[in-house]
Amino acid sequence: MTQSPKYLTGDPSAINDFLDRFDVFLIDCDGVLWSGDHLFEGIVETLEMLRSKGKRTVFVTNNSTKSRPEYLKKLTGLGIPSDVEEIFGSAYSSAIYISRILKLEPPRNKVFVLGEAGIENELREENVPFIGGTDPNLRRDMTPEDSQGIADGSMLDPDVGCVLAGLDFHINYLKLSMAYQYLRRGAVFLATNVDSTFPMNHNFFPGAGSIISPLTNMIGREPLSFGKPSQAMMDAIEGKFHLDRERTCMVGDRLNTDIKFGVEGKLGGTLAVLTGVSKKSDWEADDAVAVPAFYVDSLRDLRGVGFEGK
Amino acid sequence: MTQSPKYLTGDPSAINDFLDRFDVFLIDCDGVLWSGDHLFEGIVETLEMLRSKGKRTVFVTNNSTKSRPEYLKKLTGLGIPSDVEEIFGSAYSSAIYISRILKLEPPRNKVFVLGEAGIENELREENVPFIGGTDPNLRRDMTPEDSQGIADGSMLDPDVGCVLAGLDFHINYLKLSMAYQYLRRGAVFLATNVDSTFPMNHNFFPGAGSIISPLTNMIGREPLSFGKPSQAMMDAIEGKFHLDRERTCMVGDRLNTDIKFGVEGKLGGTLAVLTGVSKKSDWEADDAVAVPAFYVDSLRDLRGVGFEGK
Repeated sequence: MTQSPKYLTGDPSAINDFLDRFDVFLIDCDGVLWSGDHLFEGIVETLEMLRSKGKRTVFVTNNSTKSRPEYLKKLTGLGIPSDVEEIFGSAYSSAIYISRILKLEPPRNKVFVLGEAGIENELREENVPFIGGTDPNLRRDMTPEDSQGIADGSMLDPDVGCVLAGLDFHINYLKLSMAYQYLRRGAVFLATNVDSTFPMNHNFFPGAGSIISPLTNMIGREPLSFGKPSQAMMDAIEGKFHLDRERTCMVGDRLNTDIKFGVEGKLGGTLAVLTGVSKKSDWEADDAVAVPAFYVDSLRDLRGVGFEGK
Repeated sequence: MTQSPKYLTGDPSAINDFLDRFDVFLIDCDGVLWSGDHLFEGIVETLEMLRSKGKRTVFVTNNSTKSRPEYLKKLTGLGIPSDVEEIFGSAYSSAIYISRILKLEPPRNKVFVLGEAGIENELREENVPFIGGTDPNLRRDMTPEDSQGIADGSMLDPDVGCVLAGLDFHINYLKLSMAYQYLRRGAVFLATNVDSTFPMNHNFFPGAGSIISPLTNMIGREPLSFGKPSQAMMDAIEGKFHLDRERTCMVGDRLNTDIKFGVEGKLGGTLAVLTGVSKKSDWEADDAVAVPAFYVDSLRDLRGVGFEGK
């Protein structure tokens, strides 16, 4: 049923045909443009080439540790001129859902955040009250007094109606214990994204989905997630950019997030790059979670033959 | 196929019949004898009664945060006279497995510990070399230098051949990242136990299984676990105490660990107490994970009618 993906690297005519089919490129960042703080070679020039041909580029990331303005800073710092409106992250997507769809009624409208500043900044932007997150008072060991106060509820805020969890580099027992109690008391369980790993320094580290897994394991149910491949994110992107799905291509390194996101979103195409998590053997497997329509070794290969290796 | 469990509370003749059937009682601690540091009423007297009738009591716990000598201190401190040989914990069980069954060949024979001092003390007792655990140098945020060193391997010990994970009140991103890299490099994946929650202060907190779940989620496979209901633990207990399984009863509060442990171990009986995690409705459910043979509201009810409420 699924066709084999077309390999574009080193095939100028196939690349031209590919580029002609799309007006919009939704581009994943980690594993496509960079790994951690290491920008891949030829990326700046490739994005310039796409824009010079009138293509719209939208950076779609599951990384919730940075807000859109912080992401903009990273992009420009790496030499990729951009605009905050071109950036769509899972923290932003989650904040929009909470403020515009969930609409928690006061007084039980506070969000307990398990995650970094990116989530807090997007919630603040949407005027959603929150606690937890980067609060330095929670970055410590759990004391016997804490465990008593969490157990009897005296240390919990009765106004918390939602737990929003994402990648937290400062995960600890205290915060996990508090988040669990809020969930037990009926708080809505949301996740920015559920990627199991996070690419950094050409290797992998615990991702949001792994940091959240203690909560999922304890409470016995999965959170509603806003990152790729959740179609809640696709709908939000379509609503914001008024894109024609048929003329839109999703570019990414992960089959189970990026490529699945594009396939399930019925986009005109999906392009896999081999600079990140997934390998060719992953989509050739019988139980492949998703199969891309096109693939290249690296995003820079879209510049064509003359530019290979530069 | 399974009979309904017999309710013993307030039924002296049923209690006498029950006591006559067994010589050995394997007794879970958290949720049966106490919750956190709170000893339940009437427990000391109930254990005295069992011993006065010549019953052997063995304390079988999945809690890996304490070694057997530390557990002994807790028991005696709460007024329960005991002996270190009467105590069987998941940290001890894991250490025995590593030293006597796994027998890692040097130089790759070090264990990376994710957990508390109880695990370290039992490994030390068995002369198993280890790193991690309560090392204060790992109780901190991950720096960019750490992430580089973990990614390129320069911060990892090439002699680690095994990751042993249990309940860690000091879980953090740094230790999870290191444990994951050791697993990716082929280390044997062991868990002291996989309880999802840990009872404390009459409430529940993250258990070993939840603390370990980020690793399971990342690496995509389950650890070999030594706590109840693992029959590795039952075999070790039988080997040590030379018990007659038919004349042995497992007492516990959790269907999915304690009761399942006794049922699968083909013990003569299992007794559920309602002072911990599982409720009557849990074994009455169609998909009950295990059904006890007997149950009481509290362990003290075994003392009979005249002692109720004391």
